[in-house]
Amino acid sequence: MRTVDVCLTPDLLHQYELAGKNVVVVDILRATSCMVTGMAVGVAAIKPVASLEECADLKKQGYTTAAERNGAKAEGFDMGNSPFEYMQPKLKGNKVAVTTTNGTLAISKSVDADEIIIGAFLNLTAVANYLLERPQDVIILCAGWKGKFNLEDTLFAGALVQKLTKDGQFEYACDAALAAEAMYKDASTDLMHYMRNSSHAKRLGRLGVVKDIEFCAQHDTYAVVPRIQEGELVI
Amino acid sequence: MRTVDVCLTPDLLHQYELAGKNVVVVDILRATSCMVTGMAVGVAAIKPVASLEECADLKKQGYTTAAERNGAKAEGFDMGNSPFEYMQPKLKGNKVAVTTTNGTLAISKSVDADEIIIGAFLNLTAVANYLLERPQDVIILCAGWKGKFNLEDTLFAGALVQKLTKDGQFEYACDAALAAEAMYKDASTDLMHYMRNSSHAKRLGRLGVVKDIEFCAQHDTYAVVPRIQEGELVI
Repeated sequence: MRTVDVCLTPDLLHQYELAGKNVVVVDILRATSCMVTGMAVGVAAIKPVASLEECADLKKQGYTTAAERNGAKAEGFDMGNSPFEYMQPKLKGNKVAVTTTNGTLAISKSVDADEIIIGAFLNLTAVANYLLERPQDVIILCAGWKGKFNLEDTLFAGALVQKLTKDGQFEYACDAALAAEAMYKDASTDLMHYMRNSSHAKRLGRLGVVKDIEFCAQHDTYAVVPRIQEGELVI
Repeated sequence: MRTVDVCLTPDLLHQYELAGKNVVVVDILRATSCMVTGMAVGVAAIKPVASLEECADLKKQGYTTAAERNGAKAEGFDMGNSPFEYMQPKLKGNKVAVTTTNGTLAISKSVDADEIIIGAFLNLTAVANYLLERPQDVIILCAGWKGKFNLEDTLFAGALVQKLTKDGQFEYACDAALAAEAMYKDASTDLMHYMRNSSHAKRLGRLGVVKDIEFCAQHDTYAVVPRIQEGELVI
């Protein structure tokens, strides 16, 4: 029996063995929601990098640069971290280099995994189906906020756990998977209410990006399953 | 406004500032449930220590020794980690030195706090009332299982968060407090069902201590609020 586990923040990743497993990285607000959107609407490639310096350097290689720190666009880059920015027609067929406070760091910490898959509510069912077709155990890595637990990533983890376990094809590897699923079941009737109460949604609300939160709470808008290959997202 | 925060495992304790705050340590299955029981039924003092060696050494100073590793009684000690062992009449007025896999370690990591308070479902309301009467912010530290998140400690955290926030006397410091409360609300109608599904309850079930789990899920059996003073529990 395959198992599904949930790592509630990258600060707990040392407790998990990634080798031989598929890791789903999730940063609902907003890194992985942006990546899913970008890949779905025709961005040619997205390259997640951990630091602002790496991101800036990729400008010279023809990448459009997207950078966020502390919820806001970082100075001197082409874009911030809104899924709507990824829908700009001029990005179609072009490449984006991206760095964010939490999401891209979580990706770079997952290198030992068999596959690194980008998850969001926007591609929830597509990710679940992709994992159900493969033999590997799954770890869902919540990007959190600067190493701290957050609500929206855990809710996504719960939604994915529910899809993977409901027909008995995966079993719960630990209590975090059980807890995330229980939270999602409780929240799913009014996900926006839950999301609005999260600390990061409040942080973003102060920055005026409520529209982004509503967009990122949508389920199954896209059917793409972005995965890392040689440092870039492919679908 | 005072705040209440939840640290989901000791592996995340580096993210929290303990100085000036009250920390409630919880290890429902079973260390803090044992401590509350022992102090309530008349054990004179309980000294939590991190290592088996420290615990064994205290035998010479007249302590009864209680030691648990991996859910079972450790070889060569007087007692294991069952609340029923703490009810033995011969312990009345005597001192117990105790070390466990998770609970005593969580206590030793909390030394920077203003007060270290021992919480369990068994003394939930008493702990809540104690905290409500004091000016300090509160951090609830879940002992977890070898650094991993667990269900039953998080459910207790949620129950305590609910009591502290319900009249607006405390506010949520972070998403972990919100999530724990949501889990407890969902679980409280059938706490034993939840508890039985937890990984540690399954571990203990294999060790034949289902009776302990049922006892530890009881609310408000005792009104004591054990606190650490000079390395020992007082009430």
